[in-house]
Amino acid sequence: MPDKNKNNDSSLSVNEGVEQNNAINTKGLERFKNSRSSLSLDEYVEGIKSGDRTILSRAITLIESTKTEHRETAQDIIEACLPETGDSIRIGITGVPGVGKSTFIESLGNYIIDQGSKLAVLAIDPSSTRTKGSILGDKTRMETLANSNQAFIRPSPTGGSLGGVARKTRETIYLCEAAGYDTIFIETVGVGQSETAVHSMVDFFLLLMLAGAGDELQGIKRGIMEMADAIAINKVDEATEKAVSQAVREYKNALHLYPETKSGWSPKVTTCSALTEKGIPDIWEMIQKYMQLTKKNGYFQDNRNRQAKHWMYDTISNRLTEHFYNNPAVKKEQQEIEQEVLNGKMSSFKAAQQLLDLYFESL
Amino acid sequence: MPDKNKNNDSSLSVNEGVEQNNAINTKGLERFKNSRSSLSLDEYVEGIKSGDRTILSRAITLIESTKTEHRETAQDIIEACLPETGDSIRIGITGVPGVGKSTFIESLGNYIIDQGSKLAVLAIDPSSTRTKGSILGDKTRMETLANSNQAFIRPSPTGGSLGGVARKTRETIYLCEAAGYDTIFIETVGVGQSETAVHSMVDFFLLLMLAGAGDELQGIKRGIMEMADAIAINKVDEATEKAVSQAVREYKNALHLYPETKSGWSPKVTTCSALTEKGIPDIWEMIQKYMQLTKKNGYFQDNRNRQAKHWMYDTISNRLTEHFYNNPAVKKEQQEIEQEVLNGKMSSFKAAQQLLDLYFESL
Repeated sequence: MPDKNKNNDSSLSVNEGVEQNNAINTKGLERFKNSRSSLSLDEYVEGIKSGDRTILSRAITLIESTKTEHRETAQDIIEACLPETGDSIRIGITGVPGVGKSTFIESLGNYIIDQGSKLAVLAIDPSSTRTKGSILGDKTRMETLANSNQAFIRPSPTGGSLGGVARKTRETIYLCEAAGYDTIFIETVGVGQSETAVHSMVDFFLLLMLAGAGDELQGIKRGIMEMADAIAINKVDEATEKAVSQAVREYKNALHLYPETKSGWSPKVTTCSALTEKGIPDIWEMIQKYMQLTKKNGYFQDNRNRQAKHWMYDTISNRLTEHFYNNPAVKKEQQEIEQEVLNGKMSSFKAAQQLLDLYFESL
Repeated sequence: MPDKNKNNDSSLSVNEGVEQNNAINTKGLERFKNSRSSLSLDEYVEGIKSGDRTILSRAITLIESTKTEHRETAQDIIEACLPETGDSIRIGITGVPGVGKSTFIESLGNYIIDQGSKLAVLAIDPSSTRTKGSILGDKTRMETLANSNQAFIRPSPTGGSLGGVARKTRETIYLCEAAGYDTIFIETVGVGQSETAVHSMVDFFLLLMLAGAGDELQGIKRGIMEMADAIAINKVDEATEKAVSQAVREYKNALHLYPETKSGWSPKVTTCSALTEKGIPDIWEMIQKYMQLTKKNGYFQDNRNRQAKHWMYDTISNRLTEHFYNNPAVKKEQQEIEQEVLNGKMSSFKAAQQLLDLYFESL
């Protein structure tokens, strides 16, 4: 066991004894366990910048914490890391459950790691809870990536509103970039509102679909298709050639109907089999072409600036709302007042006003 | 000129000398001009309930006011009117500019007035300003309706965020219902986000489209089509029979691709010419059928309850945000901090936090 004094040793280097891989050695682990609340801001920042995965993970845990002091530390870490961020490709990946997202991410992820990339895989799933075995929560779903020291996998933040979950993921992107991950995948389930949030934090938005008989477009909301920079028809090994070419045709028609994109890029339809890796290199090449085009015509940076502004205002709304609903006076009355509204005994507006009055009086 | 004392005469009946129609007589007008700020809550409420259009208009002006005391009065009026509200049909009508919304509303409006309805026509257009001659702002666009004393037309509230504009319109619905209008049309321009807001305050959502060569679905966002309970292809008198039947087929196919609606209603595609009134009675019959179905299966009330709850929470967010951005300390720094974010000198989150700190410190 390490000397207890060591935890308070100001000369402690956070990297000392900690390997870059997930498998940190016993001595390092013990020291971290004991020094859990004693890392300084500098230690966090230096640890992240040097690519220390354990410290990166701990900093993300601060982002996800509900405690104000943790969040404040997290903000300071993000701010200090800011100069090292931004130099990455951020890719959103979505599709309905069953479309093969995990296998796809593993396949594309391993391919780009072989090309020399460092990959972080994050997720947004507001419905997830860590215990329920959520999206990305089960690391065995991406076994080879999880064991690669060029990949960093982090499940969706749990609990709270979509806004809160999305904000945490976006903050995590910054830390991953500062830790040297040059490619960020953000996975989402293609069934709800999270796609809009993901779209507003990525450079490229990829929609996975399946070729199948019948209603090709079912199950995915139109708004999601409209955001896609590309549709990849996955699992083509499991479909007939005819079904695949029909799906390609239908998706091309569907994309053709949308207004022109501001990026100057025409959304593409492509095919792949994540399992056999067929088509995976082409998808990466397509993404590279997109990056070249949009960096050259200025859209890439314009879009990131717009996103940053959007997130500033989104964060404000989000924090205002959190502050409101965490207010004890509001918490106490909310259910009863909501019930009055549902029963038609009070207007929505009066109900809102009553809660707002309680809130502002208590500040 | 009336005696100045009369303004403070507590026996003044607000209805006295004021006709139900827009054309109030000179004596009444003078008295109203002079008593502008002296109507009591009871006078407002009784005036509205008795169907007095002038008082209804003045109450709506209170809803639209930026002054806190006006809004508070407006809330009290709405609350007092609440028992008289809800017994109406609320219909959202949208479509791109040029699709013939005004003529359609006039045509359908006159038809249902002939059937004995009292109709209020409201609008949501966050881009409108009263001076610019906005949606519904130019009453000559709906001349016969504007001159009917069974119809009440009110342009879109001006200024402010979509959230604010939408809230005001929704509050206005209540007052119109209390004033005896049994059918409410809410017009919106089918190009942006307002449709979602309108959809969340109506029972039936009607999308107007045109038959035309080429890409039938262009110009209207997919998300809007997805919300439609019916698509009416307007101006069929100006299109060939072939173009019309092709448009019908394409829209039917498009609607068929969407997931089943919770209402138990299959969205319909219908045709009309607002100009020749062809198809207009059928559209009204269709809306009646929808109401019968959804009132019978419970969806109508469930949906209204859900909407009321949604609006309660929406109003809270909206008011919190308004309060924040109207804060002098926030106003002073906002532009500069936003610029730092746009230049990549400050993270979105730190920027948000700085403004939030300024706000909460100043409360």
